[in-house]
Amino acid sequence: MTGTLYVVGTGPGSAAQMTPETAEAVAQAQEFFGYFPYLDRLNLRPDQVRIASDNREELDRAQAALTRAAAGAKVCMVSGGDPGVFAMAAAVCEAIDKGPAEWKSVDLVVTPGVTAMLAVAARIGAPLGHDFCAISLSDNLKPWEVITKRLRLVAEAGLVIALYNPISKARPWQLGEAFEILRGVLPASVPVIFGRAAGRPDERIAVMPLGEADASRADMATCVIIGSPETRIVTREGKPDLVYTPRFYTGDNQ
Amino acid sequence: MTGTLYVVGTGPGSAAQMTPETAEAVAQAQEFFGYFPYLDRLNLRPDQVRIASDNREELDRAQAALTRAAAGAKVCMVSGGDPGVFAMAAAVCEAIDKGPAEWKSVDLVVTPGVTAMLAVAARIGAPLGHDFCAISLSDNLKPWEVITKRLRLVAEAGLVIALYNPISKARPWQLGEAFEILRGVLPASVPVIFGRAAGRPDERIAVMPLGEADASRADMATCVIIGSPETRIVTREGKPDLVYTPRFYTGDNQ
Repeated sequence: MTGTLYVVGTGPGSAAQMTPETAEAVAQAQEFFGYFPYLDRLNLRPDQVRIASDNREELDRAQAALTRAAAGAKVCMVSGGDPGVFAMAAAVCEAIDKGPAEWKSVDLVVTPGVTAMLAVAARIGAPLGHDFCAISLSDNLKPWEVITKRLRLVAEAGLVIALYNPISKARPWQLGEAFEILRGVLPASVPVIFGRAAGRPDERIAVMPLGEADASRADMATCVIIGSPETRIVTREGKPDLVYTPRFYTGDNQ
Repeated sequence: MTGTLYVVGTGPGSAAQMTPETAEAVAQAQEFFGYFPYLDRLNLRPDQVRIASDNREELDRAQAALTRAAAGAKVCMVSGGDPGVFAMAAAVCEAIDKGPAEWKSVDLVVTPGVTAMLAVAARIGAPLGHDFCAISLSDNLKPWEVITKRLRLVAEAGLVIALYNPISKARPWQLGEAFEILRGVLPASVPVIFGRAAGRPDERIAVMPLGEADASRADMATCVIIGSPETRIVTREGKPDLVYTPRFYTGDNQ
């Protein structure tokens, strides 16, 4: 008998931004795997089992969850945001790809969620209103020279850039170097948004021009969005600035 | 007295994929602006007013909604998916930017949602598991040469590419030409996902290699995801294939 593995995303953190589909998957599952702060976002019942871990060892965690699901359990793998964006869905697929044949028989259900860049964008206007990309700045996962090449190419392409995993204790200098690279391609006036914990009580959103962007404003809970030359700021008396990228490309600022 | 403009995203279509935050905004609002199929997704009360329109004239629609909100109404602008991704949030910000001063005083609340590429990705595995971009193929909004330049650069960068607005009656040849351009940069084996109406009853998901990708498989309700050279397919007996992009970049396939 084979079980089910739900791979869910909680959204940015607030229960109001988690879909009913994900809530229903959580209600159905018996065993929960995931980074402990994400498990803490769920109000689990006493009969539901938590197997919390730190935020490393993603493949081990996926293998442990698949082992339980292949044995017949209803298992839930929990990510923040969307499980398919720099999160656990890829680790689960990789484990299935490389694992024992019976893992391919597990019923796999991935439920999408609101990923961080969408939550940050909503709080500030519409910076992702035209073509954009999402790049993880973690050089644990790819060589730094691949990251810098990608940054140059997407900036040259005129895409708005959302940076995930911008900084950590083990990776203190990469975001500052990314800003330096982008200053070589983009105008200094391009708006940079530091969106921390969007939708949560400790939310903090700041905007500054790329020329003055200071990497120390970011932490692990921050998604950094760098505008394109088309991105505009709207000032409003008594209200926070809006940042948006127009639907129509004019090229006036290129 | 000024009112409120909620700019909401319904998600891909199923009520189970709309966030509680959006449902609450819908419950609060009195007047609803939007493309009529998106309004049809909401179960509006008899006291709630629908101002449905076709999918053009986004700026006119934004201006009409802001006029009502500035007069004190609680107004809701409805997009499918996420309102900030090729949808109405940018049109609303543009209208505020260029409109009368009183529109800057309207309380603007944007609620994020699950955008199409995330819903398609969840149905097939984790194709967006590493760096990716979202590009609108509509040359109503930018010159075709800007689009082709962007496609070449992001493919060269090794990003997975989600194409929004891939095809329409007025734009029948662009997707085929986009595939041709990408075949000049990427291996013919790269998986292409045609994700139509993900999460809705008429959902249809197909995968084929870039070398054989046929633009006629797409329609206006399709999000097309083109893998990177790293993207892999997992075959499973009796179950649909999984497509995922590994978390770790190896460069083996470049």
